Parts: sequence; C-alpha cells; structure tokens
Amino acid sequence: MSDLRHPQERLDDLCTGGRRIIQRTDRFCFSMDAVLLAHFPTLTGRERVLDLGTGTGIIPLLIADHAAAVTAVEIDPVQAELAARNAELNGLTEKIIVREGDYRDPAALFSCAAYDIVFANPPYRPVGRGALSMGARAAARHELTATLADVIRAAAFALRHGGRLAMVHLPERLGEIIPALHAAGLAMKRLRMVQPRADRPPNLLLMEAVRGASPAGLRHEPALIVRDADGNYTDEIRAIYGQEM
Amino acid sequence: MSDLRHPQERLDDLCTGGRRIIQRTDRFCFSMDAVLLAHFPTLTGRERVLDLGTGTGIIPLLIADHAAAVTAVEIDPVQAELAARNAELNGLTEKIIVREGDYRDPAALFSCAAYDIVFANPPYRPVGRGALSMGARAAARHELTATLADVIRAAAFALRHGGRLAMVHLPERLGEIIPALHAAGLAMKRLRMVQPRADRPPNLLLMEAVRGASPAGLRHEPALIVRDADGNYTDEIRAIYGQEM
Repeated sequence: MSDLRHPQERLDDLCTGGRRIIQRTDRFCFSMDAVLLAHFPTLTGRERVLDLGTGTGIIPLLIADHAAAVTAVEIDPVQAELAARNAELNGLTEKIIVREGDYRDPAALFSCAAYDIVFANPPYRPVGRGALSMGARAAARHELTATLADVIRAAAFALRHGGRLAMVHLPERLGEIIPALHAAGLAMKRLRMVQPRADRPPNLLLMEAVRGASPAGLRHEPALIVRDADGNYTDEIRAIYGQEM
Repeated sequence: MSDLRHPQERLDDLCTGGRRIIQRTDRFCFSMDAVLLAHFPTLTGRERVLDLGTGTGIIPLLIADHAAAVTAVEIDPVQAELAARNAELNGLTEKIIVREGDYRDPAALFSCAAYDIVFANPPYRPVGRGALSMGARAAARHELTATLADVIRAAAFALRHGGRLAMVHLPERLGEIIPALHAAGLAMKRLRMVQPRADRPPNLLLMEAVRGASPAGLRHEPALIVRDADGNYTDEIRAIYGQEM
C-alpha cells in the first residue's frame, strides 16, 4: 500500500493490462460515464489527445495504449496531483502529461490547433438547477468552474481542423449542446444515447463533433442499453468493461 | 367504388372507427412516418391544429377525434383536392378545413399565433443530396418546395406562445433542426428516436418543440423499436396501428 499517501486515498484495479488508479473518497471518483466515453471514439494509436477535466486521469489511463500522446488538464490541485501519480504508477509518464490549470484560459495550458482529439466529461448541470452538492465534488457535477460553452470553446481552441471532440453529457442538454458547438465552429457528427434499460429513457449521450465540418449528416447509432430485463449488464457493457481497451 | 374519380386513385381503410382514405398511386402515399407522428403528441380534444403539407390528409383523419379543429395545408392541387374529399368521405368537413397553397407565404394561408399545435411531416432531404426522384412525388421527399427552415418558420408563425410543433424527420438532420428551431424562437422539448430494430441505428426522429420556451430541459424518450428480432412488429407498433387513436 506504499502507493497511497493520504487516509482518504484508495487504489483500484482497472482490469486494463494490470493498470491501477488511485482516487480519493472525498473527491469525485470516476463512473461508468468516463469508461463509456473512453471507448466511444475510434483511435488508431497516432492521435495527439487532450483530456479536459481529467480528474484522477481515468481517460488517459484507459486510452494510453491507443494514442500517441495525451495531455490531461485538471483544475483541482488534489486531483491533478493524483492524475500525475496515476500516470507514474502505471509507467506512463512518457505518454501522459498532466497540467494543473483552468481551461477557460486555454492558451496558458495547451497549444492551439495541436490536437487530433479532445475528450470531455464535463460537469453536467448548470448552477442553480438540480440539487447542488457541496464541497470538492461539486465542481465535477455542476458548472461551477466551467460551463458547457467553456468546455466547447476550449476544445475548439485545441483541435486541428477536422479534429474531433468526444464528449459525454446529459440528453436533456442536447438542445444547448448543438448550438454551442455551432457557435464554436464544431458540428456534431456522431451521437449515441445510453439507456439504463431498453424501456427507460436515455440518461447519457455520447457524441463526437468535428471542427470545421458542416452540420449536415449527423450519424446516429443504436441506443446503448446498460442492463437487460433481469438487471444484468448487457453483453455490450460487459465487453467494454472486459476489454477496457 | 363511386368514391374514386381517377384510374390511379385507390381507397384504403384506416382501421380508425371505419375511417377511409383515397390516395393516388402516382402521388406520394402516406407511410408509417405519418402514423407515428399523429400519435406522438398528447391531445386533449381542445386543440386548434395546423397540418403543414397534409398530402391526402392522413394526419387530420387520424387526429380528428382528438382535436377541436384542423387546418390542413397542401401545395399540390391534386393532393389538396384529395385531402378535401377525404374529409368529406369521412364526414369531417365541420372539423377539417383544407387550404391549397404554399406555406412559405404563411399569412396568405392561416392566422398568426392562432394554433395550439402544428404537425409537420416535411420533405426530408435537401435538394442535391440523395437520389432525387422525379415527378410529382419528388416534392414530398426532397426540399423542392420547402426547406427545413421554411417549415419551421411557418410553424413559428402559426403557433401561439407555448404552442407545440410536432415533427417527424431524419436523425441525421438533428444538427440542423435544433439551430433552425432556435432561429425561429422554438426550443425542442421532447425527442424520440425510431429504430427499425433494437440493433439498428435510428432512421426517424419524432420531436416536439415549444414556441417561446428555453432550450434547457429536453426530454428524451426510449427508442421506439419497430420490429423485434424475428422481424415482427413490436407490441408498441401494433398498439399504435391497432388503436389508430
């Protein structure tokens, strides 16, 4: 247990070629959303990747074998330090660079038009709507430190022309996401709804938008169903967790 | 067969309390899209309804028992004449008024802010994309006589504040639909994808937008699956066709 340095830290296996992650029980811990997002875009191994709001670095750890280089940005110093330690713990310091900072000032953190793909698992809920959780976890769930427009602007700054933003968000905000993409010069080109069960409404959306693309021609995919009628994970979810890329 | 006046006319039963419809085999005949659309919005029987591009009047016939009054607009004189005859054939001339004309000039056809709900099953494909069918059916499939922006503008003109546009369209055009709604002062509030089977991508979307509403809070519904794994209609589709409202 020498990898842990704080009483609230915990160490989990990622089932990904022996990869492990340290998280803190008093901070935001990654959920299925991040795992689904990490698996959503097709990667060739040549991509320069940016992860906006990396938390403890779950997405970089999951995609590291499928990308050329990953820059991971995090505003919370405690989480940013864990993300850096997680890269080290997994022998990935050559591939993953963690930068602590606020992506509302993107030029201070990363280069313009330098990335092939940007991942974003941003806060889902506007401030003032939904029950606002307090403390260090609040900013991961509510738009305290960055709004939808902020994260999309940061992605648009980072992406090369033709580069992709892969984002997970709430279906109920689709009507705000599409205009915000337009305003930043991105167009949604791939969309998949995630339903907890076949007979329940979607509670997540996975999307890819392309910088500089035309808004015509949005490719939808069949809904991703998380659990079958008996409450067990579906084969597709098991495949995602089993392979962990 | 005295109801038919042209060799290319045919008479079909709608399974809706004995309702019948005359269509012409050389013109656009209604498809499942119109039936799904007619069943999508909740109606109380008090609504003043406008149907933009009614064809032979399928939507007015399906919803007549659930609305106070229906104005049905059609640009093709042959189809408009059939829509009027279909209202007469079903004893609905008190409830359904058919107006022949071009809704790109809405003030010439219907009143401003006078409708509670507008239905639209518009042409799906932009001119210049997809195989362009020729002849009288082309305008029903391709945006020859009205674009997406035209139909949304006409709906915005017709709807009272808080009134609803119910529309069926292609999922691939969602990225154009949402900004076009915004531009016209409407916001999408309900969205349901239609998948031919559980493992196929959606090929239709059903949506409701509200005039004057905020873009926040879009309610998604579980995907509507048309056929089961054996290729039979699902219970939900059978219920829609069985009841026919």
